[in-house]
Amino acid sequence: MLKNNLIMQKHIFLVVICFLLTGKMIGQQKIMGFTAANTVKQFEWETQFDAQLNPKNLDTWMQYMTSHPHHVGSTQDRANAEYMLALFQSWGFEAKIETFNVLFPTPKTRVLELLGDKPFKAKLEESALKADKTSGQKSEQLPSYNAYSADGNVTAELVFVNRGVPADYEELERMGIDVKGKIVIAKYGGSWRGIKPKVAAEHGAIGCIMYSDPADDGYVQGDVYPEGPFRPQDGVQRGSVMDMPVYPGDPLTPDVGSAPTAKRLNIKDAITLMKIPVLPISYEDALPFLKSMGGVVAPPSWRGGLPITYHVGPSRNKVHLQLSFNWDIKPINDVIATLKGSEYPDEWIIRGNHHDGWVNGASDPVSGLVAELEEARSIGELAKKGFRPRRTMVYCAWDGEEPGLLGSTEWVEQHQEELKQKAVAYINTDGNGRGFIGASGSHTLETFFNEIADSVMDPQMHISIKDRLYAKTMVDADNSNRIKMQGNKHIKLEALGAGSDYSPFFQHLGINCMDIGFGGEDNDGQYHSIYDSYALFTRFKDPGFAYGVTLSKTAGRVMMRMANADIIPIDFNTFYKTLNDYSNDVKTLLDNTRAGSETQNKMLQDNLFSLAKDPKKVYILPEEKDIVPFLNFSSLDNALAGLKSASEAFQKLYEKSTQLSLEKQEQLNAILYKAERSLLLNQGLPRRSWYKHQIYAPGYYTGYGVKTLPGIREGIEERHWKEAQEYIEVVAKTVVGYNHEILSAMELLK
Amino acid sequence: MLKNNLIMQKHIFLVVICFLLTGKMIGQQKIMGFTAANTVKQFEWETQFDAQLNPKNLDTWMQYMTSHPHHVGSTQDRANAEYMLALFQSWGFEAKIETFNVLFPTPKTRVLELLGDKPFKAKLEESALKADKTSGQKSEQLPSYNAYSADGNVTAELVFVNRGVPADYEELERMGIDVKGKIVIAKYGGSWRGIKPKVAAEHGAIGCIMYSDPADDGYVQGDVYPEGPFRPQDGVQRGSVMDMPVYPGDPLTPDVGSAPTAKRLNIKDAITLMKIPVLPISYEDALPFLKSMGGVVAPPSWRGGLPITYHVGPSRNKVHLQLSFNWDIKPINDVIATLKGSEYPDEWIIRGNHHDGWVNGASDPVSGLVAELEEARSIGELAKKGFRPRRTMVYCAWDGEEPGLLGSTEWVEQHQEELKQKAVAYINTDGNGRGFIGASGSHTLETFFNEIADSVMDPQMHISIKDRLYAKTMVDADNSNRIKMQGNKHIKLEALGAGSDYSPFFQHLGINCMDIGFGGEDNDGQYHSIYDSYALFTRFKDPGFAYGVTLSKTAGRVMMRMANADIIPIDFNTFYKTLNDYSNDVKTLLDNTRAGSETQNKMLQDNLFSLAKDPKKVYILPEEKDIVPFLNFSSLDNALAGLKSASEAFQKLYEKSTQLSLEKQEQLNAILYKAERSLLLNQGLPRRSWYKHQIYAPGYYTGYGVKTLPGIREGIEERHWKEAQEYIEVVAKTVVGYNHEILSAMELLK
Repeated sequence: MLKNNLIMQKHIFLVVICFLLTGKMIGQQKIMGFTAANTVKQFEWETQFDAQLNPKNLDTWMQYMTSHPHHVGSTQDRANAEYMLALFQSWGFEAKIETFNVLFPTPKTRVLELLGDKPFKAKLEESALKADKTSGQKSEQLPSYNAYSADGNVTAELVFVNRGVPADYEELERMGIDVKGKIVIAKYGGSWRGIKPKVAAEHGAIGCIMYSDPADDGYVQGDVYPEGPFRPQDGVQRGSVMDMPVYPGDPLTPDVGSAPTAKRLNIKDAITLMKIPVLPISYEDALPFLKSMGGVVAPPSWRGGLPITYHVGPSRNKVHLQLSFNWDIKPINDVIATLKGSEYPDEWIIRGNHHDGWVNGASDPVSGLVAELEEARSIGELAKKGFRPRRTMVYCAWDGEEPGLLGSTEWVEQHQEELKQKAVAYINTDGNGRGFIGASGSHTLETFFNEIADSVMDPQMHISIKDRLYAKTMVDADNSNRIKMQGNKHIKLEALGAGSDYSPFFQHLGINCMDIGFGGEDNDGQYHSIYDSYALFTRFKDPGFAYGVTLSKTAGRVMMRMANADIIPIDFNTFYKTLNDYSNDVKTLLDNTRAGSETQNKMLQDNLFSLAKDPKKVYILPEEKDIVPFLNFSSLDNALAGLKSASEAFQKLYEKSTQLSLEKQEQLNAILYKAERSLLLNQGLPRRSWYKHQIYAPGYYTGYGVKTLPGIREGIEERHWKEAQEYIEVVAKTVVGYNHEILSAMELLK
Repeated sequence: MLKNNLIMQKHIFLVVICFLLTGKMIGQQKIMGFTAANTVKQFEWETQFDAQLNPKNLDTWMQYMTSHPHHVGSTQDRANAEYMLALFQSWGFEAKIETFNVLFPTPKTRVLELLGDKPFKAKLEESALKADKTSGQKSEQLPSYNAYSADGNVTAELVFVNRGVPADYEELERMGIDVKGKIVIAKYGGSWRGIKPKVAAEHGAIGCIMYSDPADDGYVQGDVYPEGPFRPQDGVQRGSVMDMPVYPGDPLTPDVGSAPTAKRLNIKDAITLMKIPVLPISYEDALPFLKSMGGVVAPPSWRGGLPITYHVGPSRNKVHLQLSFNWDIKPINDVIATLKGSEYPDEWIIRGNHHDGWVNGASDPVSGLVAELEEARSIGELAKKGFRPRRTMVYCAWDGEEPGLLGSTEWVEQHQEELKQKAVAYINTDGNGRGFIGASGSHTLETFFNEIADSVMDPQMHISIKDRLYAKTMVDADNSNRIKMQGNKHIKLEALGAGSDYSPFFQHLGINCMDIGFGGEDNDGQYHSIYDSYALFTRFKDPGFAYGVTLSKTAGRVMMRMANADIIPIDFNTFYKTLNDYSNDVKTLLDNTRAGSETQNKMLQDNLFSLAKDPKKVYILPEEKDIVPFLNFSSLDNALAGLKSASEAFQKLYEKSTQLSLEKQEQLNAILYKAERSLLLNQGLPRRSWYKHQIYAPGYYTGYGVKTLPGIREGIEERHWKEAQEYIEVVAKTVVGYNHEILSAMELLK
């Protein structure tokens, strides 16, 4: 007891020291968008907010919510929604479950076999492990499959297509290999998984197998589960192959919420369903298929970590793939919890993380979800102590993210008119682990977020999360980059693609968004497998939930500052600088494409490809490329020049904005938070009108991976020169429109 | 028959066309160092020389010489020497066998075992294969071992040290792992093999195992033998671990030829013998040892292609390594064949390739040797038709290259006084295969060699070997390099390190050297194994010996042009440009070292390494680095400025040199071919006086890999700042001395 008392005294002493240090820091700090007086108040709330956070809650909730598989339509999925509903209500939120009905296929038949003299039938089954209790819940688990794969029964030769992205098919063409009428086998990784069967089908393949190579998340990366956190030989990555780069959400109700009464497409008319049968397998199952390959040795960068020589194929024997699905409509349950704003109830700050998992889903998504819950609980506690957010806070737990952002997309589509008016920002998380802060989002929020990253402490090193990220970046950099980066701690936000539930908010409605999380010291190989469990998470990913609580602190600050700011913390100038970089990027891309095409054409004329080739190997010459025109960027350059001067001028005046009358502040805020909307264009992007944001979109051929200035960039990449030119004008006009918003904001400040 | 006749007619037609084309080319060409009249004559001889070459001879000779293992001291080794002696004599050469007696240890005991509860004893045996007859000659084969390993009987834990180079030990230090008193296991590759046990011993290791990882030359690279050419699971790379970067040749007779009467060191005083026991093993044998490793997961770049998680160790159980050797003196048989020069008999053009192999040695070395023999035979034929080289041609077949350049080094040391006077150039080959020309050498010979590369045709593509290399380089380059290189076909000679028998000629005596060979379409994994056989070579490496004959054409031209030139084809300006690049390299190295050290020290002061580290892993901070001084390069800069103007002025006058009187030509030639000698310094390099060349040396810690300006460069790399400064002065004085040679050559031209 004595010893404990001594420790306690030491602790109190440390807390006092910390408080004094923090107090000093606070004295020097300002918060963007807050008056000096409100800054002080805000810091006080944040200190209380932090003090109330308790990692044990995260642990308790994760244990419950991951105790059984909780995919769309499962008992535990509904139970979790009700569990959270009760929690939110107990914390003083107005909460409800909003249900949508969506197409969610589950497997009926799964057969994959190698025919011929050494037949092999794939196991398609992950082993239950003693060390991981929930892995044995066989009757409740969804088997390994790809949601929205086509039904099919195909028999054909197999071809290994590396990652299965367009560049791989160009290499196959050089090798003289055609996948028409064949089944392809692709390694997971290098693109979003849905791209692989989509591109395979475009090239005439009739089936697709995807497997997790041990080089990517198996034994090559580290010890496999249960010794270590990496993928064991029969671990499988489930996942959706819906064509989300066209539109996410229920395939049968594009653009509208899939309420019970919504008009639905016929399944055959749903263009986001995969055209061919697709099945994910383990590396144990993949091995006999890859061993059966004939043909040439795969190029060096295609080879994985299995103890074989990787060949491109075709396979010596045929492969049989048979898949059929229950094409059912299932309910999804979004939990929506609201804490009404005291001053601006019609300005909403929205927070979300999905709650459905592919199986037990501890890391993905529950680790992020429990941080969100604890954040909400602590805000609820503050509210009981008198804290009222000036703006309305909306805490959401989405269902059906895994099959295709179903819960968020349907909710956004259902409430789109209201959201266009009221949504100030949407803050997303989706899983969390030990390590370093990672943040993407609207670049107008970069300055705001950097302030927050300064004020949240890393739980292992007791320095700010920004300082720790800087240390890591410096240590990992090579010498020349170290010299360049020295002293520059500023966190550049990544651009948002389409990996999680921010997508409908951001790309469909133009709501300011952020996506944040910690990681880098939590690597594992259980993504979308039965081993993404509470047991694994608490051993390897974030033992003690120290980073879970740190995420609560980080996202909680984003929410509370956004909710309480006198003036919405928008920095147009950071956005201008980022946009200007993107503009330079696409110009460089065009120049490099031109130079590369010209050089290759010259090399073809000089016959260099024929002369360099190994005459013992097949090599099909590339075709001559069309001439890359010079495009007219003047409209965009002029628009950017305007944005530069307007954004610089505005940010100079921004500090004064808290001195405006409350009425004018409200007018200004409306302009500020809606400015991002003016970056949308109703016609959307080429061939995918659902994506309306002209600055950021998921890549048509990369999936999750973002393409900035997508209309221009993909026009150049796909060699649609006319389209690229058109979208230069479109973006220029969009930027001019955005400029008008800044100018009208300035009017208020004069 | 009719069909054949038609084909024959077509062939004749093609030959006529080719002759006309070639005739036209010749009409436009000049040969460096030849008068116009002698150019025409020379081309005629070369045309005849080419026409006489017959790939069947290469096949016949390789079959005989690889029919049994022919390592130092074997029956076949002596038989091959006598076989070649008879051949050279039959072609009209004065030929003899020169014998030296050298220390050549062979294994008596080889035991490697893993102790503990799952004991394993390494097989240390390569399997005989039905598809490869000579692989079954078990009683004649040297077992797999490393020559000049220490005797030893050690038992200790095992640590995995990646490639076993100094940088790997720095990483181990960061991981908190010490190899003192341990046995290390290293992957082959990434340095010359002798570096690995040397560096291990410097760090206190008591034993060393080296293995061939399948990622480097096994199944990861392609199908294994006998299906494909890559290393099967029990294939082992033999090889020497003599400390050749200190001096090559017989360890007991440094600096002098090991004639029977030579004074020999005691074995204990021979500093080039390895200090610890070393054993090479297969990946099959390596697997249980690597599986037994505990400790942290190896860094990504350390991991190989075995289906395991690579750990750094130490091993969970101890390893027992026991080696003992017969420390015998064995005879080596150099074959030396001379065709006396008609005009300048005391100016020697020397050609060599070794004849000893580790086992049957078809690729290494016989494929290059038979090309040399055919070259000599065709020159012998020409001599019978009236061709007499103006200078003496010396054709050599070295013994004992594999254990440590024994045959060449002892011969060079034995005849050093005569060679210093008479040797104009030494042209080396060491194996050959299908593909592209590769050439290294004295940079004064670069212009000369480029002319030759223009005039030899690639046997597969029927364009010049230079054009084909250009095509390959362009096709393999990325876009930005393609743009840079477009149209530039000039072949830049690589700098010579110490991989073969040129080393004593070049680095010890300062004789102009070249090393040439073809390859790149002949990759395999049988280096120094029992599978480097006639069977494998003729299936995979150079079927039909088309590139063997092309090597005869290339090296034959080098020899004949060098032997017949009116003026030795030296280009001082190419050497200047290269040297200037090297000077810039070491300046950049110094600046980068300074910037890197300063940045790292600043990062240490800022505590970044501690803050970035994963607290769950051991990470030992690097120590603060000493300050990198600015060095005074002015003497070198001034010397280079002098070399620039002198070399430019000389090359302008060079064309006129064929108009000099014969007496003056002879004086000029003596200056030209001896100029390289003035780049030597008798004191040699720091800590290795045998290496006297101040511009090129094998790296003290890389082995084969060259270090240019070694005194300066290694001074900087090893942070011996004073030594680096001293060697700047040394190199500057050396360059000034070299300049004097150019100026005295110019005197003759005025």
